[in-house]
Amino acid sequence: MKYCVGVDVGGTSVKLGIFEDTGRLIMKWSIPTRKDDGSAHLFEDIAESINKKLADAKISKDEVTGVGMGVPGPVLPDGYVEVCVNLGLKDRFPARELSALMDGMPVKLSNDANIAALGEMWQGGGKGYDSICMVTLGTGVGGGIIHEGKIVNGTHGIAGEIGHMHVTDGEEEACNCGGHGCLEQYASATGIVRVAKRKLAEGNVKSGLRAFGGKFSAKDVCDLAKSGDEIALETLEYSMGKLGLVLSYVAMCSDPEVFVIGGGVSKAGEFISDIIMRHLNAYLNMIKKKEKNVVLAKLGNDAGIYGAAKMVLE
Amino acid sequence: MKYCVGVDVGGTSVKLGIFEDTGRLIMKWSIPTRKDDGSAHLFEDIAESINKKLADAKISKDEVTGVGMGVPGPVLPDGYVEVCVNLGLKDRFPARELSALMDGMPVKLSNDANIAALGEMWQGGGKGYDSICMVTLGTGVGGGIIHEGKIVNGTHGIAGEIGHMHVTDGEEEACNCGGHGCLEQYASATGIVRVAKRKLAEGNVKSGLRAFGGKFSAKDVCDLAKSGDEIALETLEYSMGKLGLVLSYVAMCSDPEVFVIGGGVSKAGEFISDIIMRHLNAYLNMIKKKEKNVVLAKLGNDAGIYGAAKMVLE
Repeated sequence: MKYCVGVDVGGTSVKLGIFEDTGRLIMKWSIPTRKDDGSAHLFEDIAESINKKLADAKISKDEVTGVGMGVPGPVLPDGYVEVCVNLGLKDRFPARELSALMDGMPVKLSNDANIAALGEMWQGGGKGYDSICMVTLGTGVGGGIIHEGKIVNGTHGIAGEIGHMHVTDGEEEACNCGGHGCLEQYASATGIVRVAKRKLAEGNVKSGLRAFGGKFSAKDVCDLAKSGDEIALETLEYSMGKLGLVLSYVAMCSDPEVFVIGGGVSKAGEFISDIIMRHLNAYLNMIKKKEKNVVLAKLGNDAGIYGAAKMVLE
Repeated sequence: MKYCVGVDVGGTSVKLGIFEDTGRLIMKWSIPTRKDDGSAHLFEDIAESINKKLADAKISKDEVTGVGMGVPGPVLPDGYVEVCVNLGLKDRFPARELSALMDGMPVKLSNDANIAALGEMWQGGGKGYDSICMVTLGTGVGGGIIHEGKIVNGTHGIAGEIGHMHVTDGEEEACNCGGHGCLEQYASATGIVRVAKRKLAEGNVKSGLRAFGGKFSAKDVCDLAKSGDEIALETLEYSMGKLGLVLSYVAMCSDPEVFVIGGGVSKAGEFISDIIMRHLNAYLNMIKKKEKNVVLAKLGNDAGIYGAAKMVLE
């Protein structure tokens, strides 16, 4: 039996997992992300933690194929990370650093959204496919594209960054990326709330959302939409309509077999994925026979460690 | 020395070329596209023509690695072509047919826009790169994506079909695909003329285009724009602005090294590619250091035979 290790570095915690190369998760845990001094000691912590858990599990390093790791930012083809804002990390080669701290064990690196996509393809909602696009609807909108079993990282590490596709002209608020009118501004959890507030401000249509006094979440919007609330429904039509449009761009670009929807917003289930699918397919005039091409993610927060581990098996 | 053959099947003629596997074109010619009876005899004509030219050139079949062929329509991963409208061809496996007619010689098949992209990467404007997006601005807008040296065909054969990305809401005219507001309706040669006519109709701004009495071409628009004509310039800002936006979608999807612009409209040179590049880069907030990422195609109408031939060397 061979093993592989998956590491998903986030802004507050690092998730880790040890897997059999068959895809079975045998142990998972997390450690705090030590961001002091530009994350100077982050990879030391990770190496130490992996070494300890491997020893606990009586797995020798010879039995480990390698470590895969995801970081929240663009990774260049040579493994260079210019900047990871959330980690205060700059100008580093994270995979080389971690490998050096683990006696030269092979370490592969990618972006966190990309490893989540690979994870969902391996053992989640995209299992059985080998070309998928995974969308994570959380605070932001993340995206990852897997083409013929492999992550598409891209020349500048921005492949799959669908959250920053420009979908609306004339937007006055700025996106985190500096742009105006990015998908993320409408289709993330935050974006759904933004759209709902604008719809509420447009007129006096009755809505259960008014009772919250401006303090509601994307989940509240989804719950009310399910019960037929007009403003909540219009909000999701708009927000998920923009997402469906963007997925049609991905279809006309890399044409994956299936789109996998994850992140907090996806907890609304097929209610939400069906809205996305309806909009997507309305733009796909070139495909005559449309199958069910939007599905839900299955691995939740573990998608990243699954995909990170899978990278070293490629 | 090994050889390969490239075939680019168009609606009126089939272009063919014999190449050394180094990429040198040693002979090219064309034959009419026999479309009778749903192109029933098309592949017989092609096989016969290749056999004759190989014999003329004293190249034995053992010296030929294979034949690559492009057709104007979507090709599924198994080589199935549901329909090629321009050829009246339906429900066929063109590569299998041609191979059977050539004593089992290996034949590879793709879409015509995709082979043009591969050709430009091999010996044209994209030489030296291995991940490119090629855009052909002609009667329509074609697109092809090469990822790490290989054509991205896609699950439904629509990868790279950027001409049908939806860019404008509320368009009343229908696109050939049945959609409304596709890029092709604004950025093709026909689209540029459409946009210019609408701008002329909007008001009474003086323009050299008015002298044509409604009978002008995309080339006329480009020529007048170069001489500073206000309406012509606004037209290209709009049309090529939409293209730049779409290329930003491709960048956030497959993130190629370079975009290669070909087709009749690209004859306007860097004047046009620079407008496209300016719009593209305005949307790429995620890339800090922007290099020259839009270049001109170099192979003209031969791009297809180059790329078709290259397919069999992959």
